[in-house]
Amino acid sequence: MEHQLLTEEEVREPICLLMALDQNYLPQMKVLMTSAVLNNPGEHFCVFLLHSGIDEPELDEITKWSVKSGSAFEPIRVDEELFRSAPVSRQYPKEMYYRLLAAQFLPDTMERVIYLDPDILIINPLRPLWELGINGKLFAAAAHTGKTELANNVNRIRLGVDHDYYNSGVLLMDLKQARDQIVPEQIFAFVEEHAKELMLPDQDLLNALFGDRIFPLGDEVWNYDARNYNNYLLRSSGIQDLSWVMQNTVILHFCGKAKPWKPGYFYRFGLLYQHYMQLARRDWNMC
Amino acid sequence: MEHQLLTEEEVREPICLLMALDQNYLPQMKVLMTSAVLNNPGEHFCVFLLHSGIDEPELDEITKWSVKSGSAFEPIRVDEELFRSAPVSRQYPKEMYYRLLAAQFLPDTMERVIYLDPDILIINPLRPLWELGINGKLFAAAAHTGKTELANNVNRIRLGVDHDYYNSGVLLMDLKQARDQIVPEQIFAFVEEHAKELMLPDQDLLNALFGDRIFPLGDEVWNYDARNYNNYLLRSSGIQDLSWVMQNTVILHFCGKAKPWKPGYFYRFGLLYQHYMQLARRDWNMC
Repeated sequence: MEHQLLTEEEVREPICLLMALDQNYLPQMKVLMTSAVLNNPGEHFCVFLLHSGIDEPELDEITKWSVKSGSAFEPIRVDEELFRSAPVSRQYPKEMYYRLLAAQFLPDTMERVIYLDPDILIINPLRPLWELGINGKLFAAAAHTGKTELANNVNRIRLGVDHDYYNSGVLLMDLKQARDQIVPEQIFAFVEEHAKELMLPDQDLLNALFGDRIFPLGDEVWNYDARNYNNYLLRSSGIQDLSWVMQNTVILHFCGKAKPWKPGYFYRFGLLYQHYMQLARRDWNMC
Repeated sequence: MEHQLLTEEEVREPICLLMALDQNYLPQMKVLMTSAVLNNPGEHFCVFLLHSGIDEPELDEITKWSVKSGSAFEPIRVDEELFRSAPVSRQYPKEMYYRLLAAQFLPDTMERVIYLDPDILIINPLRPLWELGINGKLFAAAAHTGKTELANNVNRIRLGVDHDYYNSGVLLMDLKQARDQIVPEQIFAFVEEHAKELMLPDQDLLNALFGDRIFPLGDEVWNYDARNYNNYLLRSSGIQDLSWVMQNTVILHFCGKAKPWKPGYFYRFGLLYQHYMQLARRDWNMC
């Protein structure tokens, strides 16, 4: 994998994050932001939130917390009619589609953004991803190639593509490319056409429409599947033990149906998530 | 258990911590201090270190870090000849005896101090312990009554005492009482006399000499044995799950021979320790 560092001048920019979620996921967004700030000393974040109707007082609280922690917060309300024909559920709300249209909603001057799902902890510095050269690709993303290798192949066949099945929970987006190459109508049409057969709708969209324009990231660092510790350990011949993960993994992704904020979560990183829930509780209550 | 809060005026005092260790345990001391500061926002600590010859540059680094994090650091060098006849080993260095003599070494104006072993993480606010009324007792300490219930009884018999066998890794000390009641010569004599039969020397000393003057603390909050999650969970009928521990436990004690900073530690809180090692690495490198 080729890592190109940008010039020193650009290094000093804030790191721009993008999230897209509904009111139900605000607690998780707060935990994510707490973890990002704590583990990125010296950095400033600019956090954009695509939503379709989160209450003002909630947004104000996030603004207040962001100012206090040296970050900026920009909520952007998206017309929810845009995806009226898309399949939605509590697990897959319509906001999940918004990430692919980010270039339409974000300021024209922005060049890149890191999209993050809300079920994530940031446990080390994000700057190497922020500065990563992606060889003219549209996105950078990671495939979960561990336990899900089978799912990876099933999805390749299902979608008729010849690349890895990328996880859409962490995306570095080149917004200049996206403004040229992502046509909203194409996305709407695809969603309408495939409404019934899409299993993980936004992820299928990413892979089917843009899979050939994705720069591959190592999931063990940039999109670690928190359910798969033993698998990462085995496939790395014992190198990626807990100590390695705590020192090298940046984005810990609690993907899948079991969630660490719900009772009965039994994967080992749930402990860390619970600790960050406590840190967030303390930190956000002091606002 | 009776909790008496002190007056508001005293609330604003810094919280005084005491550690006693040799150079080998400085990395663990740094992790402990990082965790204490992070999880006690708004507090100032005054950390006393009893040692018998840690290098000046090392002490200077701790002073520098402490100033930066709003704390004070006071190293106190103890004459190592004091315990020349005491049994020592790498696991039990002579510094472990120093805690019992703290009142001799700390400023006369100090009224209390919280002694902490180095194999500890502080994951929630310490102030409730700092302000705890202990009914005129000399110390407050917790017994590990979980998996070690058998050891507890064995030790009662071994030492011929009729109280719980207290763990000496976390001690709230009433220094005014200690100045009156703790006679160094008595401790030296006891160590000399029992040198061969002491298994956990300092802990045996605490229990044999002062066990009847200890105010009992709940170990699930103030001295959580990090090896014993399943036991705490069972004896609390499922209440003390991970979420409870992360919200309520203040002092997580990695006691016993297996240590979370060594390879192959397999108890579940090792993950959290590794994360704090990473936080400490980052934080102390920036000094």
